[in-house]
Formats: sequence, structure tokens, C-alpha cells
Amino acid sequence: KDVYKVTWDAVSAERGGFEHFMLKEIHEQPRAITDTLRGRLAEDLSSVHLNELSWTEDFLQSIDRIHIVACGTSWHAGLVGKAAIERFAKIPVEVEVASEYRYRDPLYSPNTLVIVITQSGETADTLAALRDSKQKGLRVLAITNVVGSSAAREADDVLITWAGPEIAVASTKAYTTQLVALYLLAVYLGQERGTLAEADRNEVLNALAKLPTVAEKVLDSAPLIEKFALDYQDARDTFFIGRGLDHAVSLEGALKLKEISYIHAESYAAGELKHGTLALITEGVPVIALATQTELYEKTLSNIKEVKARDAFVLGVTWAGDEELQKSVDEVIYLPKTSPLVAPIAAVVPLQLLAYYAAVVRGNDVDKPRNLAKSVTVE
Amino acid sequence: KDVYKVTWDAVSAERGGFEHFMLKEIHEQPRAITDTLRGRLAEDLSSVHLNELSWTEDFLQSIDRIHIVACGTSWHAGLVGKAAIERFAKIPVEVEVASEYRYRDPLYSPNTLVIVITQSGETADTLAALRDSKQKGLRVLAITNVVGSSAAREADDVLITWAGPEIAVASTKAYTTQLVALYLLAVYLGQERGTLAEADRNEVLNALAKLPTVAEKVLDSAPLIEKFALDYQDARDTFFIGRGLDHAVSLEGALKLKEISYIHAESYAAGELKHGTLALITEGVPVIALATQTELYEKTLSNIKEVKARDAFVLGVTWAGDEELQKSVDEVIYLPKTSPLVAPIAAVVPLQLLAYYAAVVRGNDVDKPRNLAKSVTVE
Repeated sequence: KDVYKVTWDAVSAERGGFEHFMLKEIHEQPRAITDTLRGRLAEDLSSVHLNELSWTEDFLQSIDRIHIVACGTSWHAGLVGKAAIERFAKIPVEVEVASEYRYRDPLYSPNTLVIVITQSGETADTLAALRDSKQKGLRVLAITNVVGSSAAREADDVLITWAGPEIAVASTKAYTTQLVALYLLAVYLGQERGTLAEADRNEVLNALAKLPTVAEKVLDSAPLIEKFALDYQDARDTFFIGRGLDHAVSLEGALKLKEISYIHAESYAAGELKHGTLALITEGVPVIALATQTELYEKTLSNIKEVKARDAFVLGVTWAGDEELQKSVDEVIYLPKTSPLVAPIAAVVPLQLLAYYAAVVRGNDVDKPRNLAKSVTVE
Repeated sequence: KDVYKVTWDAVSAERGGFEHFMLKEIHEQPRAITDTLRGRLAEDLSSVHLNELSWTEDFLQSIDRIHIVACGTSWHAGLVGKAAIERFAKIPVEVEVASEYRYRDPLYSPNTLVIVITQSGETADTLAALRDSKQKGLRVLAITNVVGSSAAREADDVLITWAGPEIAVASTKAYTTQLVALYLLAVYLGQERGTLAEADRNEVLNALAKLPTVAEKVLDSAPLIEKFALDYQDARDTFFIGRGLDHAVSLEGALKLKEISYIHAESYAAGELKHGTLALITEGVPVIALATQTELYEKTLSNIKEVKARDAFVLGVTWAGDEELQKSVDEVIYLPKTSPLVAPIAAVVPLQLLAYYAAVVRGNDVDKPRNLAKSVTVE
């Protein structure tokens, strides 16, 4: 490595000793999650309170459909949100990228709730969807990180993610806090509408409360991930696979890697691989396989064996204590045990670190990747 | 080229003079479309008749939700089906890959119609979804190419796609006839439920009737596409972009290219590019840009200019008569003019040819690509 002169200026001070804003923001996630939970999750973990919502009891009970509209990373958060809301609140959810949603004629009922998710609150396509929905007379809830942003001002209701300012173009703490907000919302809807199973409530609220600790511990996997990034610095193509919630989070992992390392990464529902993409899996192709969903574990393992049979190099991600996965893959990242229901918040952290180190190894401008802007305010 | 001995055997006779089954099957599409329309589209183009459906009038009127479940190429057909059904019949449709659908707990009403799409009628995950749905008491309609297949036997109702036997692993005529079946179904639902606008009915039924001629003419673009495949035989990454129906068909174009040419191809909703993937667009990266959707044309053109600004090599696809697109891209494939509503059936043909020639140029086994089976009868 080249020797470099240490300079001390305002910007590096803001980075709090980290080499890049992205790394700082990855490390801020335990704090950001705590702040997003604060005042919303009851101390005795029995319930969720979202006092900021101005919904009437009538409206709350009448919601019969939800459209989640977002772009990029926020869209990926929406995919997890769909799973949580459908499970806890039994309301059908459709998730769509804003640039598609706003130009088609989506079917809606008078009691459709539209949720827009945007870190900056200024994403052009998402704001357009927000405005179109309001014009149709639909209630819009914005999940955003910026108090006073256009989305926060124009939506009927707002859930702020208390991630704090996010400077790096590749979103990290905004994504995890969006997930926290969506889990809280899903539990709240289920609790108020009487659809939330008690076992689910106990499991998810306990898990949410422990998330800051879990996120903190996941950061310990950094050295293993840095080594993987070094070993695979010539990789041109990388695939992410998983089932269920693992698939949703693997889409985000692939996007992160693309954005800053410029590796062509793609995520696939593990069971879909053999319908075409398996043709691209050859010797040494890195595959990141997520196996956090207990009910889908065996099926995922069987897909992992398919890619291993083609000599892929597989990095598995599963829970601490698992002894099975290591027999079928090359490396394993172990997540501190928590409920599979909230796995995406834990599992995304190593994927963020992987993108980060892959970009650093390549000498890329981590915080300002080529061609991309932090907030996409044009269509 | 090497000189090779011409042999005349049973297999090549079945290929009808074509070098590969895939090319033969691509060329069979006009005939396959005609056969799939026959007896279903009224001769005066005023209506659609699906006499094979055993639905009661009560059931037909009561359907309040549709789940389309499929894998791979059939899943891509389902995405077009959703757009058609929602537009013509105003019934909300959810499309999901079978390997995900069958392992989650999808929300459904007693009047949810489940549509499974499978060329072979034997796709394991799709069959499992069919069986689960029947056990829940839901009515299942199968769209399949094989009379007497498990899906055809076990579903409550069947729409056969009359593509004839498909031998090549990469599906072509099965996909286009699945689209025809889905359009017919969407129109039928709209017509019977009184939701089909007259202008839409005239436009789509006229366009369907002319499709065999259109598909025939699209095949004329083969030489241009072969040249493109030759020029880009060193390409490792290719991106497909489009909006609306163009996005749905571009997913299929990317899958085709992956399956047989082993190029890492990926499709993106054109408006989503700048939320990350634009970082991968650099000098000379081939981008296939579909611009057949009149209402989205300007927006798509603006996304095309974004990738051109990064020096991508852009192959555009639009209607004959268009004079605008050629100013912003490197090459244009012109489709014989028809309604944008049925554009996917015309637009997919050049994408199939592109995959074919890209695979031939690379010396790949076109009809039997590595790692893949024609019919995925394992999970």
C-alpha cells in the first residue's frame, strides 16, 4: 500500500475516523435502529405505538389493499415490507418501482393505502406517484429519512426513519431503518386490526428490541468479508441467491455490489436459477447464498448444492450455531441468532460490507460511484 | 468456416432444414400463433370464445383476484398477462415465481382464480402450486402446451397453447403462444364482465388477428441481428431496458441471451437504471432498448440518452415509420406496425434471434445449453 499523508479537515472529522462515509454509516446502524424504534416500541415489548399517524379508527379498519411505491434500495425495503404486512396484517400488498407505477393505471379501491418510501424525500418518480395518488383521493403514507422533505410535507402521514444524514451514495442505514419502520407498521396494523398472532407478536417485537445488539455483532464479520473481497477481486460476475425474505435482501446485496464495485451482480430466487441462469454458473463464479429462513432451509441447501456441483465458489450466510451449511459451501458468515422474521436487517449488513470492501479493493470512489447521484431528483 | 459433411438423418429431417430446433421453432411462430387463435377469436373480430372453460356465469362474475404462478419464461409471460388482465378485465393480478409462491402463505379470497403457466405441464414447483391451490378450494386454470400433461389433467380448466412440440431448451414459440392465450383470456374476462372498453376491444382483436403476419415480417430483421451478434461476440455483459410492456418482454430477452449465449444479461425497468445499475454502463456495453410503448416513448428515449451519454452501444427496437429513435441509438430494429397493446409478441422475436445468433457465434450447443433441462421436473 502507498503511504499517504494524514490530513485533518472538516470532512474527515465528519467521517468520525472512518475512511469513507459509507463505512461510517454501516457502523451507525445499531444507533440508527435504536433511534427508529424509540418511542414506537413499548418498553414491555407488548405493542407498537405510531402516534404520528393521523388515521381514524374507521380508516385503519377499512384499508383493503396497500400499494408500496419506491425506487432502488427503497423498493427493496418495500419487498420486505410486503411480506411483513401480509403476514401480520393480512392486507394484500403490491410493491412496484415508482417509474413503472406512475405511468400505468394501477387498480385501486377507495380504501387503498399508498406507501411511498424515499430516503431523501425528493425522489422524482416517487414524488410523482405520491401526488397522483393524492389526486385520486387515496391516503398516502411516506416513509422518509428527511424531516421537511417534499415527501414528508406532501404525504398525509409520515414515518420518519431516524437514520440521520446519509452522505454515501450507496444507501445502508437508510435501508435498515426503512425495514424497521416497515416492521413496526406491519405489527401496528396487525395489532389494531386483530390479525396479529400472539406468537408472531412476541417473536417479532422481542427480535426488534434486540436488533441494535445483533447489528453490532454482525459487524464482527468484517475481516472475513474483507478477505473474501480480496480473494475475489478479479470476479466480474457474482450471483446472490435466497428464498423468501432471503431473496428480498439478496436483491439489495446485489444492487449494493453493482453500485460501488461495478461488478455485474444479480440476485435470483434460489428456486428460479435452474430456469435459465444456472447456465452462467461455472467454475469459480462467486455465489452468495443466504440461508436464514428456517422453513426454507432444506430447499435452499438443495439449490446451493446445485451451484456447488458447477464448481461455483459459495459464500453462505446463516445463523450462528448452524453446522450443516459449512459442509456444502466454501465460506460461511454466521449471523448472531435472532428471529428469521427480521433476518433481512441482520443479513444485509455483511452484504453491505462485501460491497464496500470490493469497491475499496478496486480503488473505486466508494462514496461517489460513477454515474450515480445520491438523490434522483430527475425522472 | 470448416467444410462439413451434410448428413440426412431423422433428427435433421425433424428440424425441417433448419440448423437448430430453436431456429425452426422461432420460424414456426406465425403458424403457432394462428393455431392458438383458431376457434377462439371470432371471424368478425368482435369477440373471443373460450368454450373449453367450464366456468359458471356466477364464478366468472365473482372472480375478485387472480394469482398467476409460473417459472422462468412462463413467469415472464405472466407479467404481460397481468398488464392485459388488469387493463381489460379490471381484476387485480399478482404474478409470482412458483418456487416462491408455494412456500409462502399468499393471501387469497374464496373467489381468487389461480392461473398456472407451464409449457410442459410438468414443472415441479408450478404443479405443487397448482395442487396447493386446489386443496385450498381455489379454481385453477392451466395454460400449457401439452395435452394430457399433469397440469392439463389436474387443473380445473385448461387453455392449450397450440405451439406444437418444443424441443429446444430455450423456449420461443411456447412463450409467444402463452402470450396469445393470456391476451385472449384477458379480453374474454373483460368482455364477459363488461369492463372492456370498445376502443380497446377493437384495437386488441384486430392486432391479434394480424399477429401471424407481423411475426412473419419480424423475422426479416434476422440479418441485422446476426450482424449485431457478430460485432458483439466479445461482449460479456448486456443490458435490456424498457418501460411498461417493454420491460416485461425485455426480461424475457435477457433470460434467452443468458440461457444459450452465456452472456450475463440483465433487464431493467428503464426508469430504475439510475438507481444503481447505471454504474455498470460504460463505453461499448451493449444495451438493447425497447421503445414500442407510445405513451412511454419520450420517457424511454430520455433513458436511452442517459446510457448513450455513457457511450453504451445501443440497439433500439421500435415501430417501422419511427424517425426519432435512430438519432439517439447506434442501430434500430423496426417492427412492422401493430398495436402497442400486443407489442411483446412482436418485440420478443428479434430478442430470440439475438440470443440464437449470439449462441451460434460462440459455438455453443444452442438446443441443449449447459446445466439446463427442457422441463424442470425437480424442485
